[in-house]
Amino acid sequence: MGSDSDLNVMRDAADILKEFSIAFELTIVSAHRTPKRMMEYATTAKDRGLKVIIAGAGGAAHLPGMVAAVTVLPVIGVPVKSSNSIDGWDSVLSILQMPNGVPVATVALNAAKNAGILAAQIIGTSDKKVAEKLKKYKEGLETSVKDKVKRMGSDWMNGFDKK
Amino acid sequence: MGSDSDLNVMRDAADILKEFSIAFELTIVSAHRTPKRMMEYATTAKDRGLKVIIAGAGGAAHLPGMVAAVTVLPVIGVPVKSSNSIDGWDSVLSILQMPNGVPVATVALNAAKNAGILAAQIIGTSDKKVAEKLKKYKEGLETSVKDKVKRMGSDWMNGFDKK
Amino acid sequence: MGSDSDLNVMRDAADILKEFSIAFELTIVSAHRTPKRMMEYATTAKDRGLKVIIAGAGGAAHLPGMVAAVTVLPVIGVPVKSSNSIDGWDSVLSILQMPNGVPVATVALNAAKNAGILAAQIIGTSDKKVAEKLKKYKEGLETSVKDKVKRMGSDWMNGFDKK
Amino acid sequence: MGSDSDLNVMRDAADILKEFSIAFELTIVSAHRTPKRMMEYATTAKDRGLKVIIAGAGGAAHLPGMVAAVTVLPVIGVPVKSSNSIDGWDSVLSILQMPNGVPVATVALNAAKNAGILAAQIIGTSDKKVAEKLKKYKEGLETSVKDKVKRMGSDWMNGFDKK
Amino acid sequence: MGSDSDLNVMRDAADILKEFSIAFELTIVSAHRTPKRMMEYATTAKDRGLKVIIAGAGGAAHLPGMVAAVTVLPVIGVPVKSSNSIDGWDSVLSILQMPNGVPVATVALNAAKNAGILAAQIIGTSDKKVAEKLKKYKEGLETSVKDKVKRMGSDWMNGFDKK
Amino acid sequence: MGSDSDLNVMRDAADILKEFSIAFELTIVSAHRTPKRMMEYATTAKDRGLKVIIAGAGGAAHLPGMVAAVTVLPVIGVPVKSSNSIDGWDSVLSILQMPNGVPVATVALNAAKNAGILAAQIIGTSDKKVAEKLKKYKEGLETSVKDKVKRMGSDWMNGFDKK
Amino acid sequence: MGSDSDLNVMRDAADILKEFSIAFELTIVSAHRTPKRMMEYATTAKDRGLKVIIAGAGGAAHLPGMVAAVTVLPVIGVPVKSSNSIDGWDSVLSILQMPNGVPVATVALNAAKNAGILAAQIIGTSDKKVAEKLKKYKEGLETSVKDKVKRMGSDWMNGFDKK
Amino acid sequence: MGSDSDLNVMRDAADILKEFSIAFELTIVSAHRTPKRMMEYATTAKDRGLKVIIAGAGGAAHLPGMVAAVTVLPVIGVPVKSSNSIDGWDSVLSILQMPNGVPVATVALNAAKNAGILAAQIIGTSDKKVAEKLKKYKEGLETSVKDKVKRMGSDWMNGFDKK
Repeated sequence: MGSDSDLNVMRDAADILKEFSIAFELTIVSAHRTPKRMMEYATTAKDRGLKVIIAGAGGAAHLPGMVAAVTVLPVIGVPVKSSNSIDGWDSVLSILQMPNGVPVATVALNAAKNAGILAAQIIGTSDKKVAEKLKKYKEGLETSVKDKVKRMGSDWMNGFDKK
Repeated sequence: MGSDSDLNVMRDAADILKEFSIAFELTIVSAHRTPKRMMEYATTAKDRGLKVIIAGAGGAAHLPGMVAAVTVLPVIGVPVKSSNSIDGWDSVLSILQMPNGVPVATVALNAAKNAGILAAQIIGTSDKKVAEKLKKYKEGLETSVKDKVKRMGSDWMNGFDKK
Repeated sequence: MGSDSDLNVMRDAADILKEFSIAFELTIVSAHRTPKRMMEYATTAKDRGLKVIIAGAGGAAHLPGMVAAVTVLPVIGVPVKSSNSIDGWDSVLSILQMPNGVPVATVALNAAKNAGILAAQIIGTSDKKVAEKLKKYKEGLETSVKDKVKRMGSDWMNGFDKK
Repeated sequence: MGSDSDLNVMRDAADILKEFSIAFELTIVSAHRTPKRMMEYATTAKDRGLKVIIAGAGGAAHLPGMVAAVTVLPVIGVPVKSSNSIDGWDSVLSILQMPNGVPVATVALNAAKNAGILAAQIIGTSDKKVAEKLKKYKEGLETSVKDKVKRMGSDWMNGFDKK
Repeated sequence: MGSDSDLNVMRDAADILKEFSIAFELTIVSAHRTPKRMMEYATTAKDRGLKVIIAGAGGAAHLPGMVAAVTVLPVIGVPVKSSNSIDGWDSVLSILQMPNGVPVATVALNAAKNAGILAAQIIGTSDKKVAEKLKKYKEGLETSVKDKVKRMGSDWMNGFDKK
Repeated sequence: MGSDSDLNVMRDAADILKEFSIAFELTIVSAHRTPKRMMEYATTAKDRGLKVIIAGAGGAAHLPGMVAAVTVLPVIGVPVKSSNSIDGWDSVLSILQMPNGVPVATVALNAAKNAGILAAQIIGTSDKKVAEKLKKYKEGLETSVKDKVKRMGSDWMNGFDKK
Repeated sequence: MGSDSDLNVMRDAADILKEFSIAFELTIVSAHRTPKRMMEYATTAKDRGLKVIIAGAGGAAHLPGMVAAVTVLPVIGVPVKSSNSIDGWDSVLSILQMPNGVPVATVALNAAKNAGILAAQIIGTSDKKVAEKLKKYKEGLETSVKDKVKRMGSDWMNGFDKK
Repeated sequence: MGSDSDLNVMRDAADILKEFSIAFELTIVSAHRTPKRMMEYATTAKDRGLKVIIAGAGGAAHLPGMVAAVTVLPVIGVPVKSSNSIDGWDSVLSILQMPNGVPVATVALNAAKNAGILAAQIIGTSDKKVAEKLKKYKEGLETSVKDKVKRMGSDWMNGFDKK
């Protein structure tokens, strides 16, 4: 992440990766304040054994795109809605609208959790255990909705759920 | 892709995958006009051996998100600027702003080429040949810029390139 | 509705339907977390005797459009301004900008009440009692404004209302 | 429609209604240039036997909302992207964001065809013939996509369609 | 104004008109809930002796434009940022983007005070007393800024104001 | 107007003023390139006998607001969509969003014709001849719509106009 | 700055200039309420010894552009998000979108601190002491990030920082 | 500039610098395709004798901000409206919304000419010849407007210019 102020949002990515038992690094790498550290971090990422990089940043968010410029690893970008952001549009567009040749896999505004899941899906393309966990996670999403449906009870008429 | 009118844009994804020698399927699957086909396509994708799905669509672009809803494979979404689009915002936001639990890896407006590269990067996390090709592709991008710098010649003063 | 977090908004639709004595179902059907349930819900809706479907969702709101894809019933979409929404634009455009062939009758942001009234108007095209109630409801809107005018009193000069 | 300049767009609504053998009126009623005509048109619409009103307009598009203000019939609004429009946002928001009590069923920018289909769906809630035609129309949408899939042929590898 | 919920904003117009000793009416006229009242109000406005009409409304704000449709008096529109507004864009565009032939003099979002001043300026084109008061008001704006400059004191270096 | 490139748009204001037989000045006054000329133009406008000022400009359009800053005359602002404009939003917001105390009567994007009509309406508050012409102009708008209705003929079923 | 309500934001510019030991003036100059003061302020700025002008304003923010119109000094514009602003877009576009010939060096929304740093950078092009301080400031930014990295500690796995 | 496709726009900066007899380098430095070249270019810029850097780029435009990250020279950013840009918003926000500590002096969309003038103004703070040329350039802007006023002639009534 580009700043410690992004930690509140980016923590969700760490939490979901833990849930999937995927090892990860979590640190601050600022494109604008520590450009050399960023270059070094991203250049050496593949050799350190990383498979995917998640980069979250706000405002004119250059971190995801610059990391993508110096690695062949897939880079997931999380637009963070920082203070003084223009409604989040700045980080969304700074991360999404990359030129041909250098993609960033962008997720929704503040959606660090989805960045973690996407990272798991990428790893799951070659790791059966992670793929299996993703399948269970997906079933859990379904179950969770159905449980809520039950809890809503019969106060409301609902022919479909009464079937 | 959601419609044959998207072919003009989505062809770029196919071309780049060919360049990386990655086998792929290219077909039309409309979330709104062929919902059953879409469900079947996405549900069976993993078992057919697919590793990544690229879904491109315009307007209220539900295809990428709905495909992501029924598969654990990573799904890359390409917002297509269709006619009557409101400047592309509709497809960008319909694809990007997925709820927690179901991410779509969104690339830039009309950036099917980048979707292909991102797919290659994902496959490259476990396929060394593809990873190697990506490295060469990246070097090619650099060389191409440097060639252009040379062709610009000396009409313009340029202390840096004269070094 | 796509999530129980939408209940706060969507309750207004239920309330107004009760006011018009129109029977209804209220439940959670998530396009992204329970896609099969959604397909089944929408496919069987007409045969269960439903005349109109109101679907509310936030963010990349695919529920209304996907329901419309599998039923010939009119579908009313309610864009919900969820947390992390980009000012509501995402849900508005995801619901409104449907491709040719599959319309969604979209109402204003968070306007579940208007969705209920629109449903009543649709039913009222063939149900005289509902049509009659709508006429009275409309008169009630007028009366309510006029009552407020009276309560504003004479502190402000108002030649028109003094007539 | 609010102006004869909207005819190019609104004609699609007429064409689809003819396809569904639904009788209709097509005329110009301007909220701003012929307000009395608009009031009379909308007030008498139900008694003339109309079941649904489709109103298309561009810019500060007040026609759909004002018609909805004086009738209990469902009103479908078509935002038209007129010249000097600010990218269509003006007509979309002027039609969509109606206050509580007076809904307008808004369709996509320039989507007069979808307005016609939505009108048919509303009529189809009480008219079996129209409902039947809508079912066939929906099947036609599906067939049309599948035909295109076939025509794309085998130049592109496509395991799914070869099954 | 279109609703009593606009009173909080529109009161500023009344206050400034009182300050300029300009007689006015303040009442609720809803385009959507009391369309006949609106038509009558605006049609008779000129004969009741009004010179300018200020109309404030939020969301799909049709009141200013519809009033302008039935009177030759200048109409000033105040976009009000209502709850559930999409950041105020809906009321701004609904009021501003009027078609040729029927202008609305639009002021800034929530700027009822400026609507009152503009009304005074219009009346001041033929009423010397009002014109004189406007001149003093303008001088007051200038004085007020200069007083603030003085109060800021000398804590900050300021060569210009020390001159 | 701020530039001769605005003439194409602003000419409509001149044409309509001629139609209403209202004397006017048409010239170029650039806020940014001729600030002194602008200050002198606006400061002396009232004494030269002007009753209203119409100011059109594009991009960061400061002319209308700066003119309003130095005169008590009502100032009408015309946002012009210049080349390199960001869809016209820049000129619209630069003209519309004036601070309290200094209003600009803003009309629609490129709507110089409406600026002319609004000017006529302002003058018509004290000039009976102009008011009378405005009334006729309004009737002409209505007649013009009705003529178009007739020309559309009977190819389209239209119960309302056949009455 | 255009108003004392901008002081809360603009103070950051003053603070950073103090940090760089750069002498400055801080005062209120309103383009709309004190246009003559503004003209005089900007016209005489260069002769008073100023090298750069920082102008902050909100809404239809004309101050930076108008100051730039009457001086050859570089002008830095700070868009301030005022109350009733349309999400800050108005001040951003009013300051940024200047016509050819009269640039304003625009910084991010509310970024008065960056305006101060940019001013220092401009002065640093000819003042070695300031250039040296900027270099140290930049190193401080880097150190500050690295300190935060250390403080994050070892709760999170971080292969890179453990090296 | 980030790409040779930006040359069409960025050439204007070169032209105006020539007009002011200011020596410059013009070359392609891509943040995403040649990140090392970019780092080297920007890091060595000051020592090569540059006083200001103008960086133009489109889409997710990271070049200006990344250059600013590694130099203490003032950096001027030119948002370029590239193909597939979302109306230019992406490049504007990617360049403008820089975080605290690392400003970019942003000019209007495609306004390379203004970038050149701003660079001249910065150099003019310590170079009297350039400052003098800027003064003449400004006078030229004024003269050019006045010449256009004369050429408009007397077809249009214009009391002010006849004085």
